[in-house]
Order: sequence, then C-alpha cells, then structure tokens
Amino acid sequence: MVRKIRKTPFEELSFVNNCTFGPLNKPVATVKPGEVVEVETWDCFANLVKPDQTLKDVLESDTPLYDNPVTGPIYIEGAEPGDTLAIEIISISIPDMGVTTVVPGFGGLEGWLKSSPPLTKFSKIIDGKVIYTLNDERETNIPVKPFIGTIGVSPASEAISTVTPGKHGGNMDTPEVCPGNRLYLPVAAKGALLGLGDVHAVQGDGEICGTAIEIPSIVTMKVDLIKNKSIDWPRIESSDEIMTVCSARPLEDAVRLAFLELIKWLEEDYELERYDAYMFLSVAAKARLAQIVDPLFTVVAKLPKTHLQRM
Amino acid sequence: MVRKIRKTPFEELSFVNNCTFGPLNKPVATVKPGEVVEVETWDCFANLVKPDQTLKDVLESDTPLYDNPVTGPIYIEGAEPGDTLAIEIISISIPDMGVTTVVPGFGGLEGWLKSSPPLTKFSKIIDGKVIYTLNDERETNIPVKPFIGTIGVSPASEAISTVTPGKHGGNMDTPEVCPGNRLYLPVAAKGALLGLGDVHAVQGDGEICGTAIEIPSIVTMKVDLIKNKSIDWPRIESSDEIMTVCSARPLEDAVRLAFLELIKWLEEDYELERYDAYMFLSVAAKARLAQIVDPLFTVVAKLPKTHLQRM
Amino acid sequence: MVRKIRKTPFEELSFVNNCTFGPLNKPVATVKPGEVVEVETWDCFANLVKPDQTLKDVLESDTPLYDNPVTGPIYIEGAEPGDTLAIEIISISIPDMGVTTVVPGFGGLEGWLKSSPPLTKFSKIIDGKVIYTLNDERETNIPVKPFIGTIGVSPASEAISTVTPGKHGGNMDTPEVCPGNRLYLPVAAKGALLGLGDVHAVQGDGEICGTAIEIPSIVTMKVDLIKNKSIDWPRIESSDEIMTVCSARPLEDAVRLAFLELIKWLEEDYELERYDAYMFLSVAAKARLAQIVDPLFTVVAKLPKTHLQRM
Amino acid sequence: MVRKIRKTPFEELSFVNNCTFGPLNKPVATVKPGEVVEVETWDCFANLVKPDQTLKDVLESDTPLYDNPVTGPIYIEGAEPGDTLAIEIISISIPDMGVTTVVPGFGGLEGWLKSSPPLTKFSKIIDGKVIYTLNDERETNIPVKPFIGTIGVSPASEAISTVTPGKHGGNMDTPEVCPGNRLYLPVAAKGALLGLGDVHAVQGDGEICGTAIEIPSIVTMKVDLIKNKSIDWPRIESSDEIMTVCSARPLEDAVRLAFLELIKWLEEDYELERYDAYMFLSVAAKARLAQIVDPLFTVVAKLPKTHLQRM
Repeated sequence: MVRKIRKTPFEELSFVNNCTFGPLNKPVATVKPGEVVEVETWDCFANLVKPDQTLKDVLESDTPLYDNPVTGPIYIEGAEPGDTLAIEIISISIPDMGVTTVVPGFGGLEGWLKSSPPLTKFSKIIDGKVIYTLNDERETNIPVKPFIGTIGVSPASEAISTVTPGKHGGNMDTPEVCPGNRLYLPVAAKGALLGLGDVHAVQGDGEICGTAIEIPSIVTMKVDLIKNKSIDWPRIESSDEIMTVCSARPLEDAVRLAFLELIKWLEEDYELERYDAYMFLSVAAKARLAQIVDPLFTVVAKLPKTHLQRM
Repeated sequence: MVRKIRKTPFEELSFVNNCTFGPLNKPVATVKPGEVVEVETWDCFANLVKPDQTLKDVLESDTPLYDNPVTGPIYIEGAEPGDTLAIEIISISIPDMGVTTVVPGFGGLEGWLKSSPPLTKFSKIIDGKVIYTLNDERETNIPVKPFIGTIGVSPASEAISTVTPGKHGGNMDTPEVCPGNRLYLPVAAKGALLGLGDVHAVQGDGEICGTAIEIPSIVTMKVDLIKNKSIDWPRIESSDEIMTVCSARPLEDAVRLAFLELIKWLEEDYELERYDAYMFLSVAAKARLAQIVDPLFTVVAKLPKTHLQRM
Repeated sequence: MVRKIRKTPFEELSFVNNCTFGPLNKPVATVKPGEVVEVETWDCFANLVKPDQTLKDVLESDTPLYDNPVTGPIYIEGAEPGDTLAIEIISISIPDMGVTTVVPGFGGLEGWLKSSPPLTKFSKIIDGKVIYTLNDERETNIPVKPFIGTIGVSPASEAISTVTPGKHGGNMDTPEVCPGNRLYLPVAAKGALLGLGDVHAVQGDGEICGTAIEIPSIVTMKVDLIKNKSIDWPRIESSDEIMTVCSARPLEDAVRLAFLELIKWLEEDYELERYDAYMFLSVAAKARLAQIVDPLFTVVAKLPKTHLQRM
Repeated sequence: MVRKIRKTPFEELSFVNNCTFGPLNKPVATVKPGEVVEVETWDCFANLVKPDQTLKDVLESDTPLYDNPVTGPIYIEGAEPGDTLAIEIISISIPDMGVTTVVPGFGGLEGWLKSSPPLTKFSKIIDGKVIYTLNDERETNIPVKPFIGTIGVSPASEAISTVTPGKHGGNMDTPEVCPGNRLYLPVAAKGALLGLGDVHAVQGDGEICGTAIEIPSIVTMKVDLIKNKSIDWPRIESSDEIMTVCSARPLEDAVRLAFLELIKWLEEDYELERYDAYMFLSVAAKARLAQIVDPLFTVVAKLPKTHLQRM
C-alpha cells in the first residue's frame, strides 16, 4: 500500500518550515525505510500564478510569495548522520498546464538583457507534450521529461533556503532526478528530514530564464536507507550511468567538484586508481549543465556504466 | 579536384606563425571561396609524444614543445573584415593510434588533485573504436567521434595563442566541429588567415584532464565565404540544430554569452522577439560543456531546428 | 552601568545555537536599544588551540571543533524586520597571546601550494604589538589593530553558518569593524538575534592563509536600533568614511555589490544622481579586500566623507 | 642628457603597432640600459575627447577610436628573453585638464546599473588638485596621484591588446606604477619592446566606471636591464614595500596569483620558507584592488619591507 503525503495547505505554509531545509524544522510525516510514498507537491510559486493571475499580479498583491515551497520535512526512521538516503523515483504526475516566468532580478541573463520585466507564459500539456506558444503566431511541441526540481535533506546545523542547491540536495534543478533513476542524498541530521517540490514538466539546459515548465505534481517514490555509508554530495544512478551532482560558484568549481566526486566514486567502487580515473573521464565522461540561475550553480557529471564492467 | 595543404615541417615550425592566430602571420596557401581543401594537421604536441617517447621524456629534452601548432594561415581570397567564413567539414581521417596526457600545471583538476605528474597513455584505434586501456588489467572501447580541436582565423589586431579560444575560434575543443556540420567564423583580418590542428578522435565533456584522444589527421573541408554578413562569435549548424560557441572566464560567462548569441540568432533569422527567445531557451535549449582547461572556457548552446519552422 | 554577557561554557556549546545565525536559535540575553554591553567572546577555535595543544592535536582528538562559535544570540528589544541595528564598537580587549593556523582544506592558496598540513603558530602580544615569529631565527613586530571577525544577526528564514558572511553580517573578517566605528546591520528576524566572536588582534588583507592573529576577547559596544530604516547589506561609518561591506563569489561580484551599495547610499543620503555617483567612485573610492577564504568573499568599498559635504 | 621619445602622430597610429604589445611590432626608438628617457604619451582615447567633443560625439563620428594607444615599442639594447626590465619612474607631467567617461558596454557595473549611456566629464587640474564636479551644484577636490595606466613589453609570441593586462604588464591600471617606484617587467621578446600610455592623474580603487582622470602626459623614467634574472609577473618596489601585480579572471585568481608571487619573492630573496611566508602574509600583507574593468582584473599584493630585515 502506498503512503500518501499531502502538501501543507497554503494558509499554513511557513517561510522557515517549507522554504528551508534545516535541523530544527518540524516533520509533517514519518516514513520507514523501504516504504513507497506518494508526495503531493506545490509548484515553485505555491500555485499562485494561474491563468487569471500573472506573476506581475502576484508581485503587486499582498500575498506572500513562497519560493519553492517543499512538502516536508519527512522524517525517515532510523536515519542518522553518516547514512545515505537512496530514493527511487517511480513516477511523476503531469497536470494539464504548466507555467514559465521571468522574475525581475532573477535569471541567467539578468543584467545581460536590457531589462527583466515580470513575464508569464502558460503552456497546455496534452498527451505527454508541452504545447509551447513561441509568440502570437507560432507554437511548437516539446515532449515532457518530468523531474523533481527541488529535493533535499537537512544540513547538520544550517537551514538552507529551498532556492539554493548544495551538498544536501535542494534546488538542484537536475533533469536526471526523474522516474527510473535512484537519487542518493547524504544524511546529516537525525531523521534525514526529506522535502521536495518544484517539479518541472521539462527544462532546457541551464534553465536560463530562471524557470522551466513549472508544475504542481504527485511524486511516487521509494525511500530506502543505506546505513553507515556516507557520501559528500548527491549522486544519481540510472540503469546505464553513474552521476554526481555538485553546486558551486563560479560554475567551473561546480564542474570540478562533480568530476572529483566521480573520480572518488570510481576509486571506491570500481577499483580505478585516481589518475586512471582522471584521464578516463577526459575521454569518456558526459556532463550536463543543470542550472546557472540559483545562488549556487549545478552541474551533473556522468559516466556510462558500460565502461566500468570488469572484463 | 581537391587542393592539398601539407603541414609545416617540424624544423620550420614557429611559435609565432604556427602557434598564434594573428594578422601579421604569413600565409602558407591561398584558397578561393568554395574550394574543397585537404589539410594535413599536427597533433597537439606536434607529434612529439610517440610510443617510444612519453610526455615526460619530451619535457626533459631540449626539443621545443609547440602548443597546438596549426597548419596555416590559409589566405581566403576576397575575405575582408565584416565577412563570415562558412566551413563545411567533410571528413576527418583517423590514424591507428592516439595519445592522452596529463601535463603538469595544466588540467581541470590542477590543484584539486594532490599533484599532477606528467602522464602519457596511448590508445590503439581500430575499426572506428578507441581501445582504451583503463589500467593494467582492464580496457574498454569508445566509438570515435572525431572533430577539429583548434580552428580559427586572425583577430583584427591581436595575435592570440593557439591554446586559447575566443571570438576568432581557436582552441574551442568543441566536438560539434565535426564532419557533417558547418562552422561559421567571423572574418576580422584581410584574407581571414585560417588555421587548424589539434584533432581529437573522441573527447569527454569538459576535457577534464586537459587532453582527449589526440591525433594527427587529414581534414577535408569546403571553405565558403559569406560577404557582408558579420557575426560576433563562432556558430555551428548541423542538419537539425543551430549552435553558438562562446568562451570566457568564469564559466558562467561563457554560458551567458552562448545563450545571448543564440537569442540574437533567433531575433535575426527566426523572427522571435528577445524575451520570447529567452523564455523558450529556458525550456528547450541544450548546452555542452566543451572544455574547462584552456585560458578561457568554452560552452556550446544549441537549439533543435524542429522548433524553429513557421507553422 | 555596563551589561556583561558571558560566553556560553564550552560544554554547552551547540553547532546550531552557537555556530549558525538563525531565527529559531535561542537567545541568551535581552538588551534594550541604547544599552552598552560587554560581550565575552571565544576565539575562532573555541580557545581549543593552546600553547600545549596544536591544531593538529585538536584535529586528531575527539573534541568537537566548533567553527567560529559566537556569543549569543542577543535579543534586541523592539527590533523587527525592516529595522537597522547601529552598533558602536567602543573597545576590544587584547589578551597576551594569539594564534595563527593553517587548516587543511581551507585557505586562499589551498590547491595552489603543494599541500596544506595543519600548522600552528603562537604570537605573544605585548604593549599593543604582536611579536610575530617569522621563523626560528627571526621575528618582527606588528601593531595590533583589533576588530570583530564575526558579527551578525539572524536572516529571515535561513540559518547560516558562522563561517559564512552575507547580508546578515556574519564572518566578514573586516578590519573596519573596530573600535571607533559604527556597524549597521539589517534586522530580518524579530529581536535581531545578534551574535559575535572570532576577534582578530590584526589581520592582513585577504586573510590569505585562512586565519589572522586569532584571540578571545571582551568587546564593549553600544547597540542602538533605527526603526523603519532598512538596508540591504552591512554598512560601516567612521568619523571620516562611509563604507559598505558585501560578500559573494566570484570576488568581482562582491566588489560590484559593494560599489552598487555605495552608489545607493549616495543617492539616498547625499543627493547624488546614480551616474554622478558611479563616475565619482571611479576616481575617488577606496576598497579593501577583507577575505577570500570563507564560503563567500568579502570586500569593503569606502568613500571619504570630506567629498560629500555640500559646498 | 635626457632622451625624448615623441608619441606617434595621430594619422600614423595603428591598431596593431600602437594598440598591441607583440613581437612583430616595429620599434620607434632604441634605448640603452641605464638611459633616462622622456616619453610623451596619448591619453586613453588618443586625446580625441576634448572640451568641444564628448565621447558620444566621437563614437558617432567616423574617426577611428584607438584604445589605449601606447608610445612605442621602444627597443632596449641587449634585452633578451629571460632578462628583467627595471624601470624607475622619475616624474609624470600633469596637464591642466583630465577626462572621465562611461563607455557603453564597458565598466565594472555594466549590466548592474540600468543602462550605460556614453558619458563625459571634464575636470580642471590646478596646483596638484583635481577640481571634480560632482554635479551641477557641487564640486570637490582630489589631490593628484599620477601613475602610468598602461606599460608593458612584448609577450614571446602573442600580440596582446593594450586594453588587457597580464604577465607582460599592459593595462594594469595600478596606482603604484608612480614616480619614486621601480617597476620590474619580464622580458619575453628580443629588445623587450616597451610601450606606455594611458596615464591617470588619480584613480579610485577598482576604477569602477572604467576610466579615471585620464590625461596625456610626459613620463620621465630610467630604463635598466637586469640580465639573466627572470620573473613571472610584474613586480614593483618602493622605498618601503615590495609588491606583485597579477591579473586574471575571476578576481580571486588575481589575488591568489599576487600572493603566490609574493611568497615566491620571499622565498627567493628573503630566506623565508613557503609556509612561514604564507602565514605571515595572512597577518601582515596589504592588497590593492587596481581594476575590475579590463578583460583581466588586476590586484597588487604588498608587504612592508620593515618586516623583512634580518634582526
């Protein structure tokens, strides 16, 4: 039987409990390792931007604008600092509409374009395709590739905004956090204190204007616990790739960290020496630029598993 | 008939004429727009690192180590500042061996790994596959995907090292500069003064250790000239994508520039307004991290052409 | 009468309450606006590194190593989000010894020097001078210029490590936070929740190895509250200069922010138009590189008041 | 007798010979080591911006706008790669007027301020004081502190724009290149090929709007040659400080390089071990942010000589 976790009602949302990952935040549910849960999530604007209400309307109103509110924290029984969460993402539901915005003062080309007025664009989603309106005269289709934009656990002592990615996961905006893949997160606080939200129906590399096709969703996932196994940064495993997800500024540091974590993984689990791993990545690794719009920038480094089998 | 351009003999190589792109460099050949040429190229070490001579041996010898020596400059008849070169890459020959190295003081994890001793690894290339030796006990195969690592024209007044990428092209280490694609370069000096070298049989994203599978090669390409059409940065077109290639430090600036150039292209040639283009890239663009090891870092931003047809 | 606030005993130190600035942290004292307080502070290692115990000893022991533990939070009566704290630093006591260390994995040349072993150096402080031992054979004197390395208030919802500087103040390592100057901090949480520690007897620009002459101290200061006056970043005022203190990565962004804040200050309080202010800073501003070793880097931008009088 | 070197007449200025430092540039004069020379220099706009002609006028005209044209190259007899130039700056003449501008697309807050229109401001210079007009109603005085903004030698093979600083010197915009100080530059090409221009009457730290008080000038200096002494980056010596000048992006890399060069200097000439030097800089070094507006950013790291005497 699948455990359902509902999102916090709008009027009970809190800038602390729903908009940070922190050790003092109050759990909304407790889950046993191995349980499958169905988590209802807000979109990145707490569903405030709707067909009859543009981002500009919201910004001009008195309604508090929660940034990336997450559903949680979910307390994982038995999770302690030094363990690792292994989260198998089973499915992500898609509504019939998504929203894309430009938020003034935010976005990858903020300051590089002449101005950044608040802009809102709605897209219908039909039969697994985003019907994207380029302008008044033209539209195109983009196949959905849904993923969880923000998912993380509590740091050891800090409480980090749900807008920021880091070692704890958070707002990684990484398309590889998708159905079929397993996400590993380092437990740093008792109970792990998992939270998630900010699902995207599909996103371009870099998420350059600051948002993707933003949707509310229901995420089905299995949360497992690996005891006494610690990792430094989030990792992802698909059927055919191993991946590391690191966030930093400037962007080259995110790339360096992600490759360094991949090298460590190859040393630990695949019996490769450090410099053999380094040189191999230089000829065979893949990388994805996840986003360059949040307080830290996120990069995913990948290696196909096919190269890692012993012969 | 195909015009053949031989590489400069080793003893005639010059740190100025072969290792910079500059307006005072002396052309080695003149080509008419529309001609197909077959250009013989040195590998990034002027073929000095060979099975009987590791990088360490070379560094300890008195032999001058040319960085990325290019074949050229090739004078393109009629090319003037404000024009654009359109280079159709037809084929790239693959030898039976390639080399990968770690050069002390160079590489993406320089300073992040404990040390960076000079290292050399040779790989056989058979039937379109790199036979890559992971370590003493294991090997794997990587399908070749050859491309030109360094190709560029002269800047207007500066002479830029062939190790550095920029508006003039140069050491972009961009896998999309490959057979089947068309590369556009902005002409800034009379005759364009095209040069190329540093071919790679295959490369990982980021070229993290500083080299890929480095090979000498023969590149067949058709060099066309578009008069009175100026571009700011290199661009690439494949059958199904438009791409911009920008280089900067820190890396996020390379990403921003590449997306900004893509927006300009959409404005100029695809009748999209600036903010429509910006928002669309955020949901549909692709990007590739070409390299983070040269003096400037290189990023390719891409958009599938399928989205750009008028409906 | 001066109110005394003692530091939290070592055995009661908490990685949350003493090592973050956050809205859920528990106040240890309440102070009225206008009160003069005498605050006892730990050094950056909670006084653990002592003549008989090097940093290496501490790192190898089981003792928890608190980073920059602060005394606080101090609840300021009546302080609410949107107000500004004005802290007049009256005096900073100097002990007879200070310590400088290299912490492995930390420091401005981490990765640029061959290695970074744990190193510890003690300096006597006599008659206002640090007797600094350059090496076994040589010593020199450095006049003390004491300042508060870490002083900040709670952010609105996040809890930020006392190792990190930001809009809330924190680990700014800014020598201008010294006796005679007034520090302004933006109140973002009820009661402001002020904390301080990490005093330095003197520091070089950039604090390049990661520590200065680190000392425990007693700081005497007057804490005032400016109601309904909000600022975005910390500011400092001396008898002859106005200063802004901003932290970011990469470092150029800290510089840009600090100059931008100075421009805003000139617009708000000194009746200068934006571009007049911009151009004037370019010919008359001063800047100090405070530190490049913490998670964000800190820069102080300054303008002599002499230029700001109306004529 | 002092040797006079006149600036190239405007109609003979060249974007290559006067606007790059490069090994193929043609010398305009030959000087013997030890000679005192008086060099006439253009201001950064080749004196085009004059009281009757704003920057906007110039940009809208057809007149070519030379960036930082230098007087030179000056061939230094006997100078060869591996040597060091030691340039004693004796005096810098000050005209009665200087100019400050905002150049569109250029400047430290480009993109951070709403727009950057071309702006021009003239300042009278009387009795060693810049009479600076803050706005229509107010003016202030700034004492002149003249220095050479752009001075450099040829790189080994590249030709670098006079707008860019680097190992070869160039557009360092460093106020310490002033009368009374000795500048050391690494010789990389035969004859050194020295050039200079872009003198500033005074400049704020960071040169944030992109220009200072820009003036044409006559620079008197003595050019000496130190044979077989090689340095990696420019250095400066005053009567009481040793200084290193490094340029990079992001800015923190310029700081790291400058401190690393200072450490090397302490190792070579002052018998300090690497880590003793590192820790000492952290408590006693000074740094100046020279500029963050050119293609690379420049930082000066300094140490008072008083600390370096053997006791």
